[in-house]
Amino acid sequence: MSGREGRDVAELAKRRGFFFPSNGVYGGVAGFYTYGPEGAALKRHLEDAWRDRFTVKEGNQEIEAPTIMPEAVFEASGHLDGFDDMLVECAECGESHRADHLIEDTTGIEDAEAIPIPEVEELIREHDLVCPSCGAALAGEPIEEFNLMFETTIGPGSGQQGYMRPETAQGIFVEFPQLAEYARNQLPFGVTQIGPAYRNEISPRKGVIRVREFTQAELEQFVDPERDKPDLSRVADVKVTLYPIENQREDGTEYVRTTIGDAVGEGIIANEWVAYYLGIAQEWYERVGVDVDRFRFRQHLPGERAHYASDCWDAEAELGGDWVEIAGFAYRGDYDLSKHAEHSGEDFSVFEQYDEPITTERATVDPDMSYLGPEFGGAAGEIADALERLAERDRAAFERAERSSADRSSGDEPRDGETVAVEVDGETHEIPMEKTGFAVEEVTESGEHVTPHVVEPSFGVGRTLYTLVAHAYREDEVDGEQRSYLSLAPEMAPTTVGVFPLMDRDGLGERAREIANDLREAGLEVAYDDSGNIGRRYRRQDEVGTPFCVTVDYETEGDGTVTLRDRDSTSQVRVPIADLAGVLAGLREGDRTFGALGDEYEELSAGAENAPE
Amino acid sequence: MSGREGRDVAELAKRRGFFFPSNGVYGGVAGFYTYGPEGAALKRHLEDAWRDRFTVKEGNQEIEAPTIMPEAVFEASGHLDGFDDMLVECAECGESHRADHLIEDTTGIEDAEAIPIPEVEELIREHDLVCPSCGAALAGEPIEEFNLMFETTIGPGSGQQGYMRPETAQGIFVEFPQLAEYARNQLPFGVTQIGPAYRNEISPRKGVIRVREFTQAELEQFVDPERDKPDLSRVADVKVTLYPIENQREDGTEYVRTTIGDAVGEGIIANEWVAYYLGIAQEWYERVGVDVDRFRFRQHLPGERAHYASDCWDAEAELGGDWVEIAGFAYRGDYDLSKHAEHSGEDFSVFEQYDEPITTERATVDPDMSYLGPEFGGAAGEIADALERLAERDRAAFERAERSSADRSSGDEPRDGETVAVEVDGETHEIPMEKTGFAVEEVTESGEHVTPHVVEPSFGVGRTLYTLVAHAYREDEVDGEQRSYLSLAPEMAPTTVGVFPLMDRDGLGERAREIANDLREAGLEVAYDDSGNIGRRYRRQDEVGTPFCVTVDYETEGDGTVTLRDRDSTSQVRVPIADLAGVLAGLREGDRTFGALGDEYEELSAGAENAPE
Repeated sequence: MSGREGRDVAELAKRRGFFFPSNGVYGGVAGFYTYGPEGAALKRHLEDAWRDRFTVKEGNQEIEAPTIMPEAVFEASGHLDGFDDMLVECAECGESHRADHLIEDTTGIEDAEAIPIPEVEELIREHDLVCPSCGAALAGEPIEEFNLMFETTIGPGSGQQGYMRPETAQGIFVEFPQLAEYARNQLPFGVTQIGPAYRNEISPRKGVIRVREFTQAELEQFVDPERDKPDLSRVADVKVTLYPIENQREDGTEYVRTTIGDAVGEGIIANEWVAYYLGIAQEWYERVGVDVDRFRFRQHLPGERAHYASDCWDAEAELGGDWVEIAGFAYRGDYDLSKHAEHSGEDFSVFEQYDEPITTERATVDPDMSYLGPEFGGAAGEIADALERLAERDRAAFERAERSSADRSSGDEPRDGETVAVEVDGETHEIPMEKTGFAVEEVTESGEHVTPHVVEPSFGVGRTLYTLVAHAYREDEVDGEQRSYLSLAPEMAPTTVGVFPLMDRDGLGERAREIANDLREAGLEVAYDDSGNIGRRYRRQDEVGTPFCVTVDYETEGDGTVTLRDRDSTSQVRVPIADLAGVLAGLREGDRTFGALGDEYEELSAGAENAPE
Repeated sequence: MSGREGRDVAELAKRRGFFFPSNGVYGGVAGFYTYGPEGAALKRHLEDAWRDRFTVKEGNQEIEAPTIMPEAVFEASGHLDGFDDMLVECAECGESHRADHLIEDTTGIEDAEAIPIPEVEELIREHDLVCPSCGAALAGEPIEEFNLMFETTIGPGSGQQGYMRPETAQGIFVEFPQLAEYARNQLPFGVTQIGPAYRNEISPRKGVIRVREFTQAELEQFVDPERDKPDLSRVADVKVTLYPIENQREDGTEYVRTTIGDAVGEGIIANEWVAYYLGIAQEWYERVGVDVDRFRFRQHLPGERAHYASDCWDAEAELGGDWVEIAGFAYRGDYDLSKHAEHSGEDFSVFEQYDEPITTERATVDPDMSYLGPEFGGAAGEIADALERLAERDRAAFERAERSSADRSSGDEPRDGETVAVEVDGETHEIPMEKTGFAVEEVTESGEHVTPHVVEPSFGVGRTLYTLVAHAYREDEVDGEQRSYLSLAPEMAPTTVGVFPLMDRDGLGERAREIANDLREAGLEVAYDDSGNIGRRYRRQDEVGTPFCVTVDYETEGDGTVTLRDRDSTSQVRVPIADLAGVLAGLREGDRTFGALGDEYEELSAGAENAPE
């Protein structure tokens, strides 16, 4: 990201092992990032929290599918045709650029990816856009559609065409028939997946925000659109900041601050399932530490929607002054399952049993072709089809004719009103009732085949992680010294507690290592550190967002207590070693706050953290 | 896998959602498997247990690197040249096969991948091998080296060549300079990674065992080979079954059953770091549920080693009668870091401080070119170089000449013995001592640059998962009915406890759902089931390996107890609801056994599990 926040975060992220550009020793390749030890731990905690909320608590099932998929999948899904970006190549230096991004950067036009190519070419001409690499004019350069999937070959020789999946979702959709069986064919059910996805971006930028390989956490919620409703009461009171299409059109930043319940009531969010998941997501973002004052849900403009989505809202975080999509909530309808059914010839529906079998009457015809043939010649077949369609559409037409002809003796010619009229190629034909073979039969059905609709909350794990770090980044002054720290939620922090001996002598080191091991056994993530003065050790933990630190000192031997220090406030309390694991677990889970510990334990006056030993 | 075990496991795995071949609706693509809900949970538990043992308990650091890497990485690592399989294509039907596998399958020759190509071609002729697909003779067909990396293009146009990583390890090696900084440049340190790796197998077979996309859990332990030793005392008493090279050559299955300590003492395992990790791994395999009677460590035969490994042992599991590699323990020496240093020009060493600075004398020369030039013409430069090399190699030659010339007055011509002889292009030149500029200086060094050696325990997660399922598969009879179940370790089982109401009426359902939620809150993985009779519900949980089931019945309301039932023994005890979470957590962690519960709680007589309600 740009700006001071972006630079501060990127610098801290690399120096302390959150994330950094990959393959640096070979000059790097744009769009690939490696998570260092702190970043990998934060990412794992984030994924665990997502799993807890969107899989476990929602009663969904998680799967893990391969990242390489065969071409047939993407022919069906539409990615082979529709998953393109606008590529413009500089004739001078050969560098490739995304044409829509050039336009957005230079002209202030938003959402340029929705503009048709000829207009984009015109805009480049009009605004005299130049190549950002060499400065050459781009006017007149053709714009091409560039497919964003990484391509590969499966097997030897010409093999079989394969692609790195552009979204984890397809690994779920393509296995729907099997997954429905695991769900005992009962709608609604949800399937989740957390894993890598790939987009061969034309010119990745914005550091870890726009990368070519990233982790998605996706939930595909399969529902009967007629019957299944979410339990909106669970999220009705959740407060959200919405940015609907209308407000964006007025080109301001007038948000709608409301509750999920009201937003549905007033029709701001049209789909109840989408509304439900916006509410669940809002609560989850607060839990993991996204700053709600730098967060909003923005509705997609019509031109911006993916090829499959009929309605879509993005979760967006403000990062360094820009609003960045960190999740999407799409109502995909039956697009995906229908397409896969069509292309594979397999059954992607669920058979829904009625509570009781339903018996209905069905009108059928069985036209007498030995009459129609001689009478109408080549049009006979079409007339028979027209009779069939009429029986489905307007059974009464046959019943009227039936009543009229009821009292006529069978040998007589049918009169007006005793025939059924059908139109073929603009000409009306009157068919005697008795030649239609009309009948009404009773049909009993125990249920029906339903192709489920899909509601998809789709989260970018890397972008969310970046947001947590950027929103947690703080600077302040402690003991007259500048410090920077990450105010990460205790549940997310790579390390929950740092354990230090005041000095590594007089048995303090042994005691501290013992405590560290006991806390590890209790399931906490612990960093042991005995190098440098205490102030420097606090700073190291502050920078990676460790919420609590324990110091073993000379009082510990005497009274069995240690100093427990809070990252954000730098406040300290004396806690008995016996209570430590329980207190820390409570703080981590959010069952208690550091501030309230003062009621129970002795508070220390603000310590001189930077004092030499 | 082949045989009845293989069929039973594959059938159960697909039916109950452990794993199944991917993309079935499009006819499937060999070598790709999807983990269903049960399999994904088992896989996660397995990865967590690995992380706990090989990252956390060993004090190592975990990272997460991209799966797509640029060509430069694999030029350096040797994969571009050396990562091949022998491909033979049938001229008749066009099907591709691995030549070494055809030979192994038909001739009984083992380890055919170590045989040079011309000999393999000869063997095909000699044994009249035919195409397994169409039966055509393969004699005379050329064998090609087929590179197993999936290839792709990064970026638009001709872009940049990239590959799906064939091992997670390279994502660690290539970032070594950065990772060493995170480890404060202190050897030894270890870096781990769990993630996808890819091999474009010629003709994948054996189901989930040989796939094209799989998960690796790798540890790269960086050590100073001179100085760093593992703490062998921690694993000295661990019992292992070893299959060293010598025993394999005798072509029997005479194993060496010994301890890690003795195996090192007797030189059976040459490298102490490899021995250390074999011991740690043996304990870990027992913990996660590998059957130690169907498990061994086999030493690689010399021809079988990967291009980088100087010594290697495999962990092998017996599966359906075959021995299958499920992990490798390689001593990679400094191969990887040296290659990357060479190819990138970057520093892949660690600077090791000496305990105290070391002062040494160093001999230098500074030849008088105004003398050498006129005297030797074009050879002067080479003579100067030769003097420099001589000073490094044999300082004494200069010191002898110095002593001889010490008492001569400066104007005189140097005599024999007062010159230094160097050879250039086979000709010996005598250089007067005073023209050499010889001097000895004192050099003080505070440490030295060391390129670390690498010890690599590398685990196949999918193969280990398959082993757990296959080794846990049991059949027995309960109440006269056949049952099949998975005797998974409680820590690994996808679900820890099934909770059932005896019937969903009279408030039993509500009470059971309450208990299920409380157990979930306590961090246990719970399946709630109220459909079908109790016996059928037990069977469903048995088949997915759920170790314990809780049934709420009519006594529950009265005395606050429930029935707790053990999967393997089908024994039952009555446990107070208040104790349930603690008892189950203890059983899961292995802190208590079901058998011992009888001392504390009322045991029930073996229940009639299949009785109708």
